[in-house]
Amino acid sequence: MAKTTPKIPKGTRDLLPIEAMRREYIFATLKGIFQKYGFGPIETPAYELLETLTGKYGDEGDKLMFKVLPRGRKLDSALKAYEASPDNGFEVEEALRYDLTVPFARFVVQHQNDLTFPFKRYQIQPVWRADRPQKGRYREFFQCDVDVIGSDSLWNEVELVKILFEGFSALSLGDIVIKLNNRKVLFGVAEVLGETERFQQLTIAFDKFDKVGASGVLDELRNSGFEEQTLQSISPLLNDGLSLEAMKPFLANSEIGQKGLDELQFVLDKLTDEERKNVIFDATLARGLNYYTGAIIEVVHKDFPSSIAGGGRYDDLTGVFGLQGMSGVGVSFGADRIYDLMLEKSAFPSHVKVATEVLFLNFGDTEASYAYTVMQELRKAGVSCELYPDAAKIKKQFKYADNKGVRFVALIGDSEMNDQTITLKDMDSGNQETLSVTEALQKIH
Amino acid sequence: MAKTTPKIPKGTRDLLPIEAMRREYIFATLKGIFQKYGFGPIETPAYELLETLTGKYGDEGDKLMFKVLPRGRKLDSALKAYEASPDNGFEVEEALRYDLTVPFARFVVQHQNDLTFPFKRYQIQPVWRADRPQKGRYREFFQCDVDVIGSDSLWNEVELVKILFEGFSALSLGDIVIKLNNRKVLFGVAEVLGETERFQQLTIAFDKFDKVGASGVLDELRNSGFEEQTLQSISPLLNDGLSLEAMKPFLANSEIGQKGLDELQFVLDKLTDEERKNVIFDATLARGLNYYTGAIIEVVHKDFPSSIAGGGRYDDLTGVFGLQGMSGVGVSFGADRIYDLMLEKSAFPSHVKVATEVLFLNFGDTEASYAYTVMQELRKAGVSCELYPDAAKIKKQFKYADNKGVRFVALIGDSEMNDQTITLKDMDSGNQETLSVTEALQKIH
Repeated sequence: MAKTTPKIPKGTRDLLPIEAMRREYIFATLKGIFQKYGFGPIETPAYELLETLTGKYGDEGDKLMFKVLPRGRKLDSALKAYEASPDNGFEVEEALRYDLTVPFARFVVQHQNDLTFPFKRYQIQPVWRADRPQKGRYREFFQCDVDVIGSDSLWNEVELVKILFEGFSALSLGDIVIKLNNRKVLFGVAEVLGETERFQQLTIAFDKFDKVGASGVLDELRNSGFEEQTLQSISPLLNDGLSLEAMKPFLANSEIGQKGLDELQFVLDKLTDEERKNVIFDATLARGLNYYTGAIIEVVHKDFPSSIAGGGRYDDLTGVFGLQGMSGVGVSFGADRIYDLMLEKSAFPSHVKVATEVLFLNFGDTEASYAYTVMQELRKAGVSCELYPDAAKIKKQFKYADNKGVRFVALIGDSEMNDQTITLKDMDSGNQETLSVTEALQKIH
Repeated sequence: MAKTTPKIPKGTRDLLPIEAMRREYIFATLKGIFQKYGFGPIETPAYELLETLTGKYGDEGDKLMFKVLPRGRKLDSALKAYEASPDNGFEVEEALRYDLTVPFARFVVQHQNDLTFPFKRYQIQPVWRADRPQKGRYREFFQCDVDVIGSDSLWNEVELVKILFEGFSALSLGDIVIKLNNRKVLFGVAEVLGETERFQQLTIAFDKFDKVGASGVLDELRNSGFEEQTLQSISPLLNDGLSLEAMKPFLANSEIGQKGLDELQFVLDKLTDEERKNVIFDATLARGLNYYTGAIIEVVHKDFPSSIAGGGRYDDLTGVFGLQGMSGVGVSFGADRIYDLMLEKSAFPSHVKVATEVLFLNFGDTEASYAYTVMQELRKAGVSCELYPDAAKIKKQFKYADNKGVRFVALIGDSEMNDQTITLKDMDSGNQETLSVTEALQKIH
C-alpha cells in the first residue's frame, strides 16, 4: 500500500465529535416534536434508480445529480454503448438521492398497501448535489423533512406551522418570522392581470421581491415584456407590502384567488395571538418550485441572510409514479443553516458536549484495577467515566482531562485503596475531597 | 414527466416507520453506553476519494466498491481516456464508503491536530458494497463502530469487552458469548510449527474451525501442502478445544505466543465472575482481516448463525496515511443482525413504536378548533396527539386510530365544549369517560 496524504472530496466535510453531537442535538430535538405531533420516521436508500430521479428537478438537477457507476459487465456494456454513439451519453442506472421529496413519493407509491393514510412521516437523511462548493454550501448535506400525504385538510398546514414554532422555540431560536403565501393567490393575481399564460415568469419575478424590492420586480417584468398597464396594476400591491387586506379587493373577481385567501385565513385563525405576531402574509413568496399548488411557507430569522426552513402543499406528487390524487403538504428544516445560526447565537445547551464527567487517573495496574471497579459503580449510576489507559506522567493525564473538559478527576492511590475511598478533584474550582463512593456519587449528581 | 412504476435498486431497502424506530432504538441505546464510556461521535462523508479507499480491502473490495461517476468535463475526459486505452479501465475519482475503519484512519490523520489522544470515537453510518444481494445481506447497511486510537494499553480491550456486555444487555440480548483470541497467539503457533512463512494460510484454515471442525481444518491444511508432522502437532490443540491452559506449554518456546497469552490473561482478569462465564478463549478465531495485530474479539448468540459483533487491535492503521505508531483497537456492532435477532426474540421494548397516544376525532371545524386547543395542552404536557384532519365518517376515523395503534380516542362534541371537558375512549378496554383536561392528563400519564 502506497502512502497517501489524506484528503477529503471537494465540497464534503467531516464532523468532529462536538460537531456531530450538536447536529445530533438538533435532530433529536426535532424528532421529539415530530413524534409528539404523530409523525413517524422513514428511511430510503442513499441511491435510487436513475429513472426515479430523472426529470424531477429540471435540467439543472439532472446535471447536478451524483451518478453511480455501473459495475462489472454492466460497466463494460455501458462503455461499449458510449463508444458506439457518444451522443447518447454514458448510460448509468443509479444516482445518489438529490432530495427527500421524490424518494418519499416513490416510497409512498411502492408501500401504499402497508401505510395508513393520511400518512405522516419525517425523514432526516443526507442528500447529494454536485453544486460548486462555497462557504456554507456543501455537496453532501442533511435534509430534515416532515410531510403529510393523503389529506387536503388545511389542519395539516396548521400543524406544520405549529411544528415550526415549537421546533425553533425548542432550539432556542424562537425569534423567527414565518412567511405564508398560497399559490392560488399568486394564480389569482395572474388571472386578474390577464397573465395566466405567463404565470411562471410572474412568480419568478415576485420571488425576488425580498432581494430587489418593488422597482426590481417591475424592472424584471418590464424586461420580460409585460405591458406598462399590467405593471401599473401590480405596483400598488408591491408598494403597499401586499397585505392580506389589500389583496381582498384586488382578487374580488378571481375565484381561485379568493380561495387562496380563504385558505390562508383558515390557518391564521388557528394561531395564538403570540404566534400571530410572528406570521406574515407575503404575496411575493413563491419558493421557485413549480410543484407547490396551495400553501407556501418560509421561515426567516433576523440574524440569518437566507431562509432556515420552508415548504408548501403539492397536490399531485405521487402522480408521476402512478398514484393519483394524493395531496401532500410538508416543510423542511434547513439543518445546516440552523446549525450555523445556533452556533452564532450560542443556542446549544451546555450539556451538548462530549461528556466525560470523571477521569480516573492511572497510577499503575494495581491502582487502576481498583479504580476500575469504582468506575463501574459510577457508570452503573449513569455517570460517564474514563480510566486513563496508561500509567503516564500525571501532567499528561491532567492535560487529557483538560482537553476533554472533564468535570472531575478521580485519584486513587494506596490510602484510597486502604480506606475504600476516592479522591475527587473538581477541575473548575481545583478543590479536592476524599470521599466514599456513595458520597462521590452524591457530589457528582 | 413520464409515469414510472416505482422500484428500488437491487439490494437496497426502505425502512417503514416502525422499522426506522426500531433501528433508532438500537443506535440510541448503544450511543448512550458509548458516551458513558467516554466515546464521542464522528461522521465522515458518504464518498471518499478513490485513492483513500483503493488497496485497503483487497482485490475483492476494490471490485465491490460503488464508484461515483465523474461529472461534467471530468466525465468527458475520463471517457476519452478510456476510448484511447480501454485496458487502463475507466478512471473515477470517488467511491462510496466501504467500511468505517479506513475513513476513520483518514480522519485521524487529517484532523490529528484537533484531536485529543488517545482518541475515543464511535461512528454509526451506512456503508455500501456491491455484493450479490441475498436474504439478510444488503448493498447498503449500517456499521456501528467504537474505537480507541493512540494507546496500546490493554485497558482499552477491557473497556470494549465491558461495552459489549453492557450494550447487548441493554438490548435484552444478555445471553451472548464473547470469543477472544490474540493474533500473537496465532503467530506463536505458526512459530512453534516452523510455519511463519505460511502464517496466513494457517489462520485462514483455523478461522474455519467453527464450521468444519478439527478434521476439516486438518484437511484444508493438508490440501494446502502442510506436512503430516505439522498436522499431528496441531491436532491435539484442535481436539482439546484449544483452551488457554493447553496453549501455555505448547507456546513455551515462542516469546510472541507467550505475550499473546499474557495479553489475553490481562483482559480476562478484569472481568467479573458473571462476565467470565460468558467469555471463551478461542485460539482458532482469526476474523480473516490481516490488519489485526493483537486482540481478536467476536460476539455470538446461540440463536443466531453468525457473529453479531466483532473487532480487534490493529497496530498501524494510520501508517498508510503517513502517521506512524498509532495503535488502535475497536469493535463493530452488527446493526442489521442485531435488529433481526431482537425481532426474533421480541426484544424491542413496547414503547418502541410510532407512538400517537391520543387521536382527537374531527366532527367539523367548530369542534375541531376547540379540540385543537385541548390537544395543544396535552402536547405541552408531553403527550403525543393528533387531530384527524377531516370530518370524515366516524368509522373511518376509528379505523385510522386502530391502524396507528393509539391508546385513546378523544371525542369532543357540543356537551364537551359546553362543559369544557373531553371524552376519552380507551382503545384497549373500550371504556369511555368524560373528564376535565386535568383529569384526562392524569389518566393518560
